[in-house]
Amino acid sequence: MKDRVIRFGVSLPETLSERFDALIKQKQYPNRSEAIRDLIRKVLIEEEIQQDEEVLGVLHILYDHHQRELSDRLTDIQHDYHEHIISTTHVHLDHSNCLEVILLKGRAREIKQLGDRIIAIKGVKNGQLYLTSRGSNIK
Amino acid sequence: MKDRVIRFGVSLPETLSERFDALIKQKQYPNRSEAIRDLIRKVLIEEEIQQDEEVLGVLHILYDHHQRELSDRLTDIQHDYHEHIISTTHVHLDHSNCLEVILLKGRAREIKQLGDRIIAIKGVKNGQLYLTSRGSNIK
Amino acid sequence: MKDRVIRFGVSLPETLSERFDALIKQKQYPNRSEAIRDLIRKVLIEEEIQQDEEVLGVLHILYDHHQRELSDRLTDIQHDYHEHIISTTHVHLDHSNCLEVILLKGRAREIKQLGDRIIAIKGVKNGQLYLTSRGSNIK
Amino acid sequence: MKDRVIRFGVSLPETLSERFDALIKQKQYPNRSEAIRDLIRKVLIEEEIQQDEEVLGVLHILYDHHQRELSDRLTDIQHDYHEHIISTTHVHLDHSNCLEVILLKGRAREIKQLGDRIIAIKGVKNGQLYLTSRGSNIK
Repeated sequence: MKDRVIRFGVSLPETLSERFDALIKQKQYPNRSEAIRDLIRKVLIEEEIQQDEEVLGVLHILYDHHQRELSDRLTDIQHDYHEHIISTTHVHLDHSNCLEVILLKGRAREIKQLGDRIIAIKGVKNGQLYLTSRGSNIK
Repeated sequence: MKDRVIRFGVSLPETLSERFDALIKQKQYPNRSEAIRDLIRKVLIEEEIQQDEEVLGVLHILYDHHQRELSDRLTDIQHDYHEHIISTTHVHLDHSNCLEVILLKGRAREIKQLGDRIIAIKGVKNGQLYLTSRGSNIK
Repeated sequence: MKDRVIRFGVSLPETLSERFDALIKQKQYPNRSEAIRDLIRKVLIEEEIQQDEEVLGVLHILYDHHQRELSDRLTDIQHDYHEHIISTTHVHLDHSNCLEVILLKGRAREIKQLGDRIIAIKGVKNGQLYLTSRGSNIK
Repeated sequence: MKDRVIRFGVSLPETLSERFDALIKQKQYPNRSEAIRDLIRKVLIEEEIQQDEEVLGVLHILYDHHQRELSDRLTDIQHDYHEHIISTTHVHLDHSNCLEVILLKGRAREIKQLGDRIIAIKGVKNGQLYLTSRGSNIK
């Protein structure tokens, strides 16, 4: 199913358009249309998340792998929620620190709960969950 | 000095444009052009703040006026920084709680410091500073 | 009704506590306890907003008063929602620009809708709504 | 080098402490101390990022792999900045959509520039960069 392209006009005061062009150049967008599409997709994705639709989650946690029982708890939780977990990437930052990025899918609210539970584990120094779209509604 | 209006075309996949139109309607924008101008102004303002330009600050603090010495400290600080303070609005929320909104002007960094200092006063239950543009560059 | 004070112990690795003390000093908090109370109140307020409780809104809008019909529309909307509007502060920034700060009360969701509607008015260059607590649950 | 543990007292009004305990339970923290350590680490990490220290970046991008030349451009950029890129995880979301999570290291400012450049590529539907600590200063 091909997606038709709609074209429409936008009017901008010249001073605003000049400043926008400078920003576009700095951020290295190929043209205004692409920069504006990015702004539009961003607000649509914020709306998907607000509406508790099926979304993706990018959860990163920072922890010390010397912390006893931490990896066991992490593994247990990830198995409890296996249908929500897409994949896990692990980076050895230094002798003690690890960064783990866990990709999640599900309703916004469920994913937030799972994120809270993982971030709350003793030994997780810092964690943050970010939600984004599954992309099927965002062309 | 009048500001010329620039008109240019934006192309969007139809599914994206339909969802954007639904959002515009929900947020009650008069048309696409106005919604897009709002998105553009928003990123330009974020950029002004990042660049430590002359900006405005909207600081709101929540406090209990029974707290001893609090109002004196608030007044002292506001006088120390009088050249940065535009105005203060005070609301009596209930028997003990007050909301105070302090409008500030100056470089982003200075205003942040002043905001930190006010929020840190004992008895200020919560405070948040938001920066925005002075408007002269944002048509 | 007096509020009893609860005292409890927090343990921190020394390196973390040193960095926290440096931050506290920079932000000019009188002591650790006050800084920690501020962090706690902040997450409780975020929770109130999430739960759609009765909250306060601080809406700031930037606009050009030369824009035809803008002030009429602003006044009309403010009258439609008069039970949600506490007060309005107006600042003349320069020959054309105004900053208006509108203080609102009501359920988080209602206030967001009202904020959206005002920000969407043609001629409002930028607007942002921030929600905070009414303070009655935040000691 | 072992890190000594510092213990200190925090006083809270009872109503605040009750609400904090409820939140802690909901977020499944094992105890108050761990919840407070998490709040402290979070502000310290925000400070590291503000100060342009050496940090980590978690960049996620959503794109349609049918988009011509996109993967080539992505690969080119990642090679240009190979010293900043730790790893890339790729997820096939559906017939057309991909989620890619790129882990980055470097000064906050450099990583932001690289993130901007990748997000601006035509065909990247949405992207977001989040910065966090390398953990060595955050016990």
